[in-house]
Amino acid sequence: MRILIKNVQLNRHPVDIFIDGRFIVRVGNDLYEEAERVIDGSGKAVVPGFVNGHTHSAMTLFRGFGDDLPLEKWLNEKIWPYEKHLSEEDVYWGTKLACVEMIKTGTTCFNDMYMHYPPVLRAVEEMGLRAVLGSTVFDFFRDDIAGQARQQVAKDSVLPRSGRISFSLAPHAIYTVSGATLRWVDDSAKANGWLVHLHLAETQTEYNNSVKNFGLSPVRYLNRLKLLSPRLILAHCLYVDEEEIRMLADHGVRVVHNPNSNLKLGSGHAFKYREMKAAGILTAIGTDGAATSNNLNMLEAAKIAALLQKGWRNDPTVMPAGEALQCITENGAAILNIHAGKIEAGYLADLCLIDLRSSAFTPGFNFVSNLIYATYGNCVDTVICDGNILMENRSLKGEDEIVEQAGKTADKLIKNHG
Amino acid sequence: MRILIKNVQLNRHPVDIFIDGRFIVRVGNDLYEEAERVIDGSGKAVVPGFVNGHTHSAMTLFRGFGDDLPLEKWLNEKIWPYEKHLSEEDVYWGTKLACVEMIKTGTTCFNDMYMHYPPVLRAVEEMGLRAVLGSTVFDFFRDDIAGQARQQVAKDSVLPRSGRISFSLAPHAIYTVSGATLRWVDDSAKANGWLVHLHLAETQTEYNNSVKNFGLSPVRYLNRLKLLSPRLILAHCLYVDEEEIRMLADHGVRVVHNPNSNLKLGSGHAFKYREMKAAGILTAIGTDGAATSNNLNMLEAAKIAALLQKGWRNDPTVMPAGEALQCITENGAAILNIHAGKIEAGYLADLCLIDLRSSAFTPGFNFVSNLIYATYGNCVDTVICDGNILMENRSLKGEDEIVEQAGKTADKLIKNHG
Repeated sequence: MRILIKNVQLNRHPVDIFIDGRFIVRVGNDLYEEAERVIDGSGKAVVPGFVNGHTHSAMTLFRGFGDDLPLEKWLNEKIWPYEKHLSEEDVYWGTKLACVEMIKTGTTCFNDMYMHYPPVLRAVEEMGLRAVLGSTVFDFFRDDIAGQARQQVAKDSVLPRSGRISFSLAPHAIYTVSGATLRWVDDSAKANGWLVHLHLAETQTEYNNSVKNFGLSPVRYLNRLKLLSPRLILAHCLYVDEEEIRMLADHGVRVVHNPNSNLKLGSGHAFKYREMKAAGILTAIGTDGAATSNNLNMLEAAKIAALLQKGWRNDPTVMPAGEALQCITENGAAILNIHAGKIEAGYLADLCLIDLRSSAFTPGFNFVSNLIYATYGNCVDTVICDGNILMENRSLKGEDEIVEQAGKTADKLIKNHG
Repeated sequence: MRILIKNVQLNRHPVDIFIDGRFIVRVGNDLYEEAERVIDGSGKAVVPGFVNGHTHSAMTLFRGFGDDLPLEKWLNEKIWPYEKHLSEEDVYWGTKLACVEMIKTGTTCFNDMYMHYPPVLRAVEEMGLRAVLGSTVFDFFRDDIAGQARQQVAKDSVLPRSGRISFSLAPHAIYTVSGATLRWVDDSAKANGWLVHLHLAETQTEYNNSVKNFGLSPVRYLNRLKLLSPRLILAHCLYVDEEEIRMLADHGVRVVHNPNSNLKLGSGHAFKYREMKAAGILTAIGTDGAATSNNLNMLEAAKIAALLQKGWRNDPTVMPAGEALQCITENGAAILNIHAGKIEAGYLADLCLIDLRSSAFTPGFNFVSNLIYATYGNCVDTVICDGNILMENRSLKGEDEIVEQAGKTADKLIKNHG
């Protein structure tokens, strides 16, 4: 479809944007292209669609189910006893709910890790979002489970996918996946051009156990396994020292910071953004799953990331609003090897129109500051992904039915297995 | 006016609420009171209106004007050069904009400190909110300025006010107000039944200067001045030790935590909520002014407060969602000596209806968790304050005009004095 957006604010100037098929083709003034759809952008600003660098989308089903608990109790009593009963249908509705939430808050692309690949894929295809969907790998240090995981990956990786969806391998963590399987993951990823999505150095406990079990800290252990590469996306990385940051940078490893999840689970607060940026590491931001964070609102995650950097450093100049926005747009797209995240000709047509007529954007001295610090997700008026209009005037087709069905699915899951 | 709210969720049960005049008169099932207005509460939950424990409402005019700067540079180059040119008309529109934002996000009461009392009072009276409005006191350690401040207080305190507005004295800080004037403030407050609203122990610099200039830490200095009392509301209190917490508790002093502002200005992150609660200090939450935080959204402030407590303690059990909600309702009302903050017969009719039909409230396992952690302000559907309906179906009379006029006012201020 050809879409022409007229008179929308970009970097404080009104522009027209012409989208043809999947791409932004032209950005300029007084464009008069023939288009099937003309959108009036007046009173709105355009921003790249947000990229959620790390989530478990179907975990929307567990939103608010176990809060304010110690991590072990949360996992053992609240999540794992129910997660093992999840059906493909459950995961489908959980993922649909996540997609609704992401679209409503301006996310056009996300990096996912969860079980039951087929229903996740089906849900995301239907909802029109862009995603890198990870086939999750666990082996719990057992050869038989490792064998099953490889078979599962073989099945998941050949499922038919549209151009919006990329396949990745998502080994859960170094404490649930053996070194041998991690090596197999990286070899497979290299051979097939896939990304690898792994939790790392999330808690002090993980760090201590890594030193105890492998004789090395988490990053050094991955380095010994020769897993560090530009294919690797590491979620969390709270517990890393200067030398490890150097290692990550030297190998082009990408990092995703998840401030809300790290705070809420009590994992820690001192993410070393400044050092990582100085070392040249590509850093994005994620929400983590809604069971921990408890939403998928990237504007909130960006605000909390920016505030937290200033707070724990006692320095208001760290991660200014523009860098926070860059983390959730350009950097998010870049870590996923996707040519999006900018409003420029040649980029994928993944973008949002932001409604400026609200108290949060008043006064309008600094649009980026108002976007990151003052508003809260409901400013997103229109969402376009891959050249398709997913939401317009905050209206998203099927929203009410999905919310209702997902709610019923979650209730039934807990009731049937409580 | 008599208002009957039918079938609204309260603590997971549907109830009817009957409001007569300024008060909640009855809460129960199957109420059939005669009322001028009947509101259908189905699909909604009721919560007490939120209380913003510390703000400078007219500073909405400076939203986004100077972000991500060191505190001194921000004050000297961005705020003070313009603040001195503020007219009564400017402050009026800034306060109106703040009221719009507060109502839209469910705040029914706030504790304010700003200059130009008459236009602040006029704006809040018009908008229908409840407030404790502080007459700001500075003397910069000069007798002549102290004299002017006393005259100003004498004028402000006798302005006619409705029952929704209380007068308070707001000495700015111990580094801008002399000990003699602080003593005068407390004597006046005691004689007249006013509250005292003061910034204290906000930064390490303030702490160090207090020790240097007065030979005592900020709380101990106030103790020597005999200022500690249940009349005193202290904003910030980041830099306090165990003994000082004991002093505050022993004197019934009230504390307001401002997590967003503390983080954004790099003031610090380690607010000692757990110790203050254990000592029995009444603790509320505030947004601070929109020039620092950069909005007046109490649900966001509550979420960030709760996350931050868990994060810096590395303990997910600190400040659970219910306590965060208590801080922005019951505790907020209590520190201001206002009989609100609960949905019970006899309490002031300050309440919000929350729209449950959204992804943020799905699944509905835990309403309070979803309210604090998952949603973001736009869930507030209806706001009632002092028995008057201020917003219904998110529609607020005059919103567009106020937003537009406040925006123009801010632009003109910066343009004329830049």
